[in-house]
Amino acid sequence: MKAFLISLGLTWAAVAETQQNPAAVAARNWRETHERAILSEFMDLLAMPNLARDDEAVRKNANAIVSMLGKRGVKARLLEEAGVPPVVFGEIDTPGATRTLMFYAHYDGQPLDPKEWATPPWQPVLRDRPLHQDGRVVPLPANGKIDPEWRIYARSASDDKAPIITISAALDALKAARIPLRSNIKFIFEGEEEAGSPHLASVIEKYKSLLGSDVWLICDGPVHQSRRQQIVFGARGVTIVDVTLYGPNHELHSGHYGNWAPNPAMALARLLASMKDDSGRVLIDRFYDGIEPLTETEKRAIAEAPDVDRDLMRELSLGATDGDGKKLVELINYPSLNIRGMGSARIGGQASNVIPSTATATIDIRLVKGVDHDVAAKRLIDHIRKQGYYVVETDPDAQTRMSHPKIAKVTVEPGGYNASRTSMDLPISQLVLRTADSARGPIVKLPTMGGSVPLFMIDEILHVPTISVPIANHDNNQHSYNENIRIQNLWDGIELMAALLTM
Amino acid sequence: MKAFLISLGLTWAAVAETQQNPAAVAARNWRETHERAILSEFMDLLAMPNLARDDEAVRKNANAIVSMLGKRGVKARLLEEAGVPPVVFGEIDTPGATRTLMFYAHYDGQPLDPKEWATPPWQPVLRDRPLHQDGRVVPLPANGKIDPEWRIYARSASDDKAPIITISAALDALKAARIPLRSNIKFIFEGEEEAGSPHLASVIEKYKSLLGSDVWLICDGPVHQSRRQQIVFGARGVTIVDVTLYGPNHELHSGHYGNWAPNPAMALARLLASMKDDSGRVLIDRFYDGIEPLTETEKRAIAEAPDVDRDLMRELSLGATDGDGKKLVELINYPSLNIRGMGSARIGGQASNVIPSTATATIDIRLVKGVDHDVAAKRLIDHIRKQGYYVVETDPDAQTRMSHPKIAKVTVEPGGYNASRTSMDLPISQLVLRTADSARGPIVKLPTMGGSVPLFMIDEILHVPTISVPIANHDNNQHSYNENIRIQNLWDGIELMAALLTM
Repeated sequence: MKAFLISLGLTWAAVAETQQNPAAVAARNWRETHERAILSEFMDLLAMPNLARDDEAVRKNANAIVSMLGKRGVKARLLEEAGVPPVVFGEIDTPGATRTLMFYAHYDGQPLDPKEWATPPWQPVLRDRPLHQDGRVVPLPANGKIDPEWRIYARSASDDKAPIITISAALDALKAARIPLRSNIKFIFEGEEEAGSPHLASVIEKYKSLLGSDVWLICDGPVHQSRRQQIVFGARGVTIVDVTLYGPNHELHSGHYGNWAPNPAMALARLLASMKDDSGRVLIDRFYDGIEPLTETEKRAIAEAPDVDRDLMRELSLGATDGDGKKLVELINYPSLNIRGMGSARIGGQASNVIPSTATATIDIRLVKGVDHDVAAKRLIDHIRKQGYYVVETDPDAQTRMSHPKIAKVTVEPGGYNASRTSMDLPISQLVLRTADSARGPIVKLPTMGGSVPLFMIDEILHVPTISVPIANHDNNQHSYNENIRIQNLWDGIELMAALLTM
Repeated sequence: MKAFLISLGLTWAAVAETQQNPAAVAARNWRETHERAILSEFMDLLAMPNLARDDEAVRKNANAIVSMLGKRGVKARLLEEAGVPPVVFGEIDTPGATRTLMFYAHYDGQPLDPKEWATPPWQPVLRDRPLHQDGRVVPLPANGKIDPEWRIYARSASDDKAPIITISAALDALKAARIPLRSNIKFIFEGEEEAGSPHLASVIEKYKSLLGSDVWLICDGPVHQSRRQQIVFGARGVTIVDVTLYGPNHELHSGHYGNWAPNPAMALARLLASMKDDSGRVLIDRFYDGIEPLTETEKRAIAEAPDVDRDLMRELSLGATDGDGKKLVELINYPSLNIRGMGSARIGGQASNVIPSTATATIDIRLVKGVDHDVAAKRLIDHIRKQGYYVVETDPDAQTRMSHPKIAKVTVEPGGYNASRTSMDLPISQLVLRTADSARGPIVKLPTMGGSVPLFMIDEILHVPTISVPIANHDNNQHSYNENIRIQNLWDGIELMAALLTM
């Protein structure tokens, strides 16, 4: 066996890890006898409302997490800055270690409308199947194995409290199996990621001396749609732009003024339609300029990723996709422009026969390496101007409205940031890949995830590479209602975290 | 003087009417000493909620109106059909009369969202100026003249309870001045006009024998924007169409799927944009086909109408209008296509980073004589098909969604109807014009109003011409929030009604 392996140019150590990471094995053994305790502790954490803007609530979460880490022998505390959700910081010093690993997650959740949820977002429930397959609410069984296809429904079940419970369980498992750590370990769990991490940079600056490490492992986002573990080396940046167009200064009777008073909903339709062609390619001038090309390693990783597009189309009931036949895994390496929402007056049963007074769209632009978020927003604004619009930043007064045939209020929301991408060829990148492969392989390697996390600031301020090690199921409804996590993804996550903690 | 008039080809009687209609003079005299009583009675009527779908409420309104008419010696009763808001019917037999005049109005109001109103819609208040000029709520003064520029704010203050109070007051005034009627008078006040009058035709069929008359005088809509009295000989028809487009079967994370999963809001923008050019001209095939041409009299009437476009643009803070430089008064003689409302996911502070699952627009098409409402809706649907959409009438299932790259649910709301137009050259038309001119001249004559009232059925079922005799101020916010009526318009309306009642 050994000779055969050497003939393939592989080392024994690499293959041993691929086959059986001891920390992952220990994590599985431990988990199998502690499933109920893990889920109970997790559901307690999920029962805490966690919107970044709710100061009291985030503080309660942060204190609970400090206490969870403390129980596992982690020196944990809050990093504070006035008026900002506290950042949970923890560390484990490992004597003789030459490497420091930072685990990042966030404990705040996406804003939501409780009316859209099947069950209240902060009253976690187990369901025996996904909700879209009519999963029923079931109690946590008193004994016996828990079906790993069950799911927990609650805000942040996936995004992003799952990593916190899996790390906690992994630490328990390692302790029980007496598996020693090899690196110094640090944790940073922030409380306003879903608000765009507006203060993370200043907290990092303030506590820079605490935060030294060789890598930030970003525990956020979903695994591959094929359900295989993926390791992701970057994230797209984002900038959000609100566009409001104006018609008459109040709603008008559509009969008495239709054909004469311009309709801002129609104007918005025309403006938005000018931004993309039928295949979804963005028509804004220079939108794709400056993109940093992929390396050969990155191109190979993309080519090797499983093709899940057909399955995904079925899952999402899609009859077509954008992108001129390119695969999803390729397309997320380009910047994108997306209408998050669009509104003008009222629709359906609520509609009345008016010409609306305003029409608004909220747009997000996802960015890849090489395209700055301010530049991207400026290109969008330039495009709006080119369509004949006079662009303002606040609601125009009557005089301004009368002076311009077409007027648009364009607001770039604060908190936009750039993409980041760590080279897959760095030694730390290779170590993470080997470790993940040994615990959860064969893994999928991707140069970037589609979503955005503010990784750029780690690179810019701390000059430390970031690598994403996600654990959630891809169909977790993160950022929408009925967010959930599949139990098996929690179990897999514990094994991955145990392996990464012992790198 | 008489010789001079005869030399101009005019009869003395016509000029006398132009100068001073005795019924209108009597109405003014009576009103000046009864202002408080008129407004009190009106505000009691406005305090009754009046949505067509609220059976108990509309019935309360109908009974109150029967009682108001009864007090004025009108034989009044309810015309009933099961499950339908009652129609108030009243009559005054005039011995020796050779002509019967039917006065139409409606007592139900447009649906509304109370949150949008400055004061509750069914708690009528007086304001000392229009709300958009910061008018303050003022009490009804205990004595002295009431400022005619004050306004009453309440649902249906203009649309369409104002005619009911002005007719009541006019009857009081005529009785007080002992001015005899010359025609038989009938009243028909319906209770579901704002729901599209879905049962008016069947009520008319059922009670046909009661409803014989020489003309229906439609007491609805606003006077000309110049504030001059207008007499209108038609109304546009209308058909309402809801269009929903589909993206993924649930909202997706815009980062993980942006560039790949089609966005229904963008698709809707493209579809709506395909329907009009930049000047507002509708691009749907054959949209303008079949329009019945205007007669010379009608063209002359339009040419003689005051040009208020500049003033209106100032009033509405508009920097441009649709229609390639044509005037409003011309443009309402064409069919129009209007987006009543548009919605997809959420906007602004409520937006989250999703690709929406659906996008919906509610569209109204206003029709002119010669274009059938079903044909117009079909042309719109054909246009949607031509843009590549597979059109369905109910929410498509997963299989249907997957089988078609572009899918649109298109629902034509029930209750669409055709335009109607009465010839200005009929003797009854000439009589109404002379009478209105003598009471409130010089008047504006228009072939059609921009709005829709189901006049076509009067023509189709009863073969009786319809002529609109509106009284509300044009800036009354009808069909939107903060509906109001200017007091002077009520006073003018009483004079007009007194004159018409004594034709």
